[in-house]
Amino acid sequence: MKLKERFRVATNNHLELYGVDLVKLSNKFGTPLFVFDEKLFRQNYRRFLRTFQKNYQKTIICYSIKTNYNLTLCRIMQQEGAYAEVASGLDLHVAKRAGFQADRIILDGLYKSARTLREAIRYKINLINVESFSEMERINKIAGEMGVKQSVGIRVNLYRKRMSFKSMYKSLYCHPDSRFGFSIDTAYLVFRRASKFENLQITGILTHPYYETIASLPKLCSLIKRIQSELGIELQYINFGGGFRSTWSISPIDLIKDFFRQKIGLKSKLDKEKKSTDIEKISALIANTLKKRLTDMPEPSIVFEPGHNLVNDAGLLLLRVGCIKEASGCKWIVVDGGTNLIPIYTERRELIVANRASAPPAETVNVVGPLLYGMDFIAIKTRLPRIKEGDLLAVLNSGAYTMSFSTQFLYPRPPVVLLDHNAEIKVIRDKETYEDVVHLEKVA
Amino acid sequence: MKLKERFRVATNNHLELYGVDLVKLSNKFGTPLFVFDEKLFRQNYRRFLRTFQKNYQKTIICYSIKTNYNLTLCRIMQQEGAYAEVASGLDLHVAKRAGFQADRIILDGLYKSARTLREAIRYKINLINVESFSEMERINKIAGEMGVKQSVGIRVNLYRKRMSFKSMYKSLYCHPDSRFGFSIDTAYLVFRRASKFENLQITGILTHPYYETIASLPKLCSLIKRIQSELGIELQYINFGGGFRSTWSISPIDLIKDFFRQKIGLKSKLDKEKKSTDIEKISALIANTLKKRLTDMPEPSIVFEPGHNLVNDAGLLLLRVGCIKEASGCKWIVVDGGTNLIPIYTERRELIVANRASAPPAETVNVVGPLLYGMDFIAIKTRLPRIKEGDLLAVLNSGAYTMSFSTQFLYPRPPVVLLDHNAEIKVIRDKETYEDVVHLEKVA
Repeated sequence: MKLKERFRVATNNHLELYGVDLVKLSNKFGTPLFVFDEKLFRQNYRRFLRTFQKNYQKTIICYSIKTNYNLTLCRIMQQEGAYAEVASGLDLHVAKRAGFQADRIILDGLYKSARTLREAIRYKINLINVESFSEMERINKIAGEMGVKQSVGIRVNLYRKRMSFKSMYKSLYCHPDSRFGFSIDTAYLVFRRASKFENLQITGILTHPYYETIASLPKLCSLIKRIQSELGIELQYINFGGGFRSTWSISPIDLIKDFFRQKIGLKSKLDKEKKSTDIEKISALIANTLKKRLTDMPEPSIVFEPGHNLVNDAGLLLLRVGCIKEASGCKWIVVDGGTNLIPIYTERRELIVANRASAPPAETVNVVGPLLYGMDFIAIKTRLPRIKEGDLLAVLNSGAYTMSFSTQFLYPRPPVVLLDHNAEIKVIRDKETYEDVVHLEKVA
Repeated sequence: MKLKERFRVATNNHLELYGVDLVKLSNKFGTPLFVFDEKLFRQNYRRFLRTFQKNYQKTIICYSIKTNYNLTLCRIMQQEGAYAEVASGLDLHVAKRAGFQADRIILDGLYKSARTLREAIRYKINLINVESFSEMERINKIAGEMGVKQSVGIRVNLYRKRMSFKSMYKSLYCHPDSRFGFSIDTAYLVFRRASKFENLQITGILTHPYYETIASLPKLCSLIKRIQSELGIELQYINFGGGFRSTWSISPIDLIKDFFRQKIGLKSKLDKEKKSTDIEKISALIANTLKKRLTDMPEPSIVFEPGHNLVNDAGLLLLRVGCIKEASGCKWIVVDGGTNLIPIYTERRELIVANRASAPPAETVNVVGPLLYGMDFIAIKTRLPRIKEGDLLAVLNSGAYTMSFSTQFLYPRPPVVLLDHNAEIKVIRDKETYEDVVHLEKVA
């Protein structure tokens, strides 16, 4: 068992995070329990910023609020100097409550209500990234009514159809990712038309997710140069969005491959950590390309909107083993939280038996939640020590798209605690009661 | 456009539900807005009960609380005389609050916490259906401490592996549905062992979902006879669970088929309503088989746990069109609610343009939500009239696994109104504010 340095196995075989016994913690707060690591969360932000700034000084990092919109976690990002990327009125509310100044807030999204646009413009947020002409018209109108010139960015879509199983699958749904922003092929005309709105100032371009952009960097630079020279638009912000995943997913294709691997006597590769995004390399590539190609113009800022990369490994979820079953020749470990708390069950997460942390892996099991449908998985075919009922599982890498994506299906949400920089425990979200779930309802 | 009789198109072309103008309703309450039809909900229950009782008098219908646990809706089922099927402490709390008497509550589920078991036993609910021996041991211990004999049912799993694409797909995950309950192959031994717990009284058998049981009815009857004759266990309840869907889903296979249909010039079949479950036929089959085979024993009650079949078509969701886009040769209709409110996007739902309800279908579109990821669908490749921004879409069949499965990802939840039996409008769940979403959190 390879544990990261913040973890330690105590002499009683309990898993400790900075010296805090996670078994004791679970006894105090019950399970399920989300535990966040403030130190790592701050380090993640600093590493991300430093990596990009090393190659390109004018780098801005926006924390993607929707990834995990807990107020304390957002506040920590605000304290670090991050900007906030918000994508709805709720996100904007959270950003304000967490203390982000208006000039450090960027509003994104395929659809924003008139109410949210009005709030954002009244609050004088830094930038609104737009994805359609109807939105530009709406913003232009509202800004006009308020007598302001609104700074906007334009989202350009670099989505490419590939010769792959995934792309073929997506074609059945008309390539859903292609609907965001404006196609790169029409982008010049979009900027030209956008520049004519009297109450809009075009200051940015957004190309989320970053990995779609990488192969098209020269094309993107040509566009930026052209809109500068021909339209006189000097972009201040080149925004590469997010998508910097540090984990990997298990697809049906992986499961099929693994099935055949095992048929011929090879070991399962499902638990083998795949290489995570090489931020060093990406930052150098982006910086070098921009510096080489965007000459003869004021240097723009580059902007990123990470969420997953910053908060995912800073969060873990403690779950209790409720029962163990055998069926279809598999062992099923049933725990007290499932896709109600970790909806993206295909993402691979490391599991540690927190009350017997040095026990060696012994068998392949399915770890599943307490909900009443088949696909309520925590981990598909993963190697674990021999599990007993009552064991405590620490599900690592549970900070992103878990709480923000959670439901109140069958279970109220669990409490969330933070181990702060002094390794002191703070409750940053109270446990929901049954009444918290239904208090807006009435019995007729 | 074939509208059910409760709907009417008014002279101003607005869609009316029992004379209530849905456009006006959306103007009053905003969008998104859930609208429930009390009359239809009650009718659904009565039809379901009547159909089964016609063939088998001792029929019990349990409303599956998790399908939609709104207190008013649950209260309506309680008033109709339904039992409640609960599957967690939250469900049990809701059932109590909605007025279900203890002897009309059944507790199901793969995993139930000791706390929930204790609550249920203390409250003297009718029956606990168990799915593992460790659970029996837990219940036996708690019942012993409380000095009661707890009535339990045993869940028997009739899941069969089939030669089909779906079954092959499920095999990659070790047939997840097989983990529920006990395999039919071991069921006799399970009942034998279960009968030895001193504080348990075995009174039922559960075989959810009903459709797995149909082909195995004779086998099930043999089992029931054998445990009566050899173990002396007289079952009072034969529970066939739920699964009575009245709608259908769009799978990737359907999309592939449709792709080729259109290639050869045939019309799309995606919008073609598939036959829904024939409850008449099922009830006759079950009743006849039981009457024929379960002779020489006291007549047991048959129990059903529908949810979807009762509440799905009683609910609709009103959504506003925010913008319209073209990409990948498709038209994308972006509305103000998506998989945050209707997570099971593969389920096919009829859409009506509520403000121009008689407009004929004109084109095939993708209707998508406002969230920031590709698979945020409301309807995949569906035929609609030519849509304009600002149009109001009524998404029918939105009552089951929508509210109970909803998230607070990016958006607080919308209000829910009920058109009661007098077609008067009652708010049965208040709109969530931003603060409702974050009030349990603290800014450090």
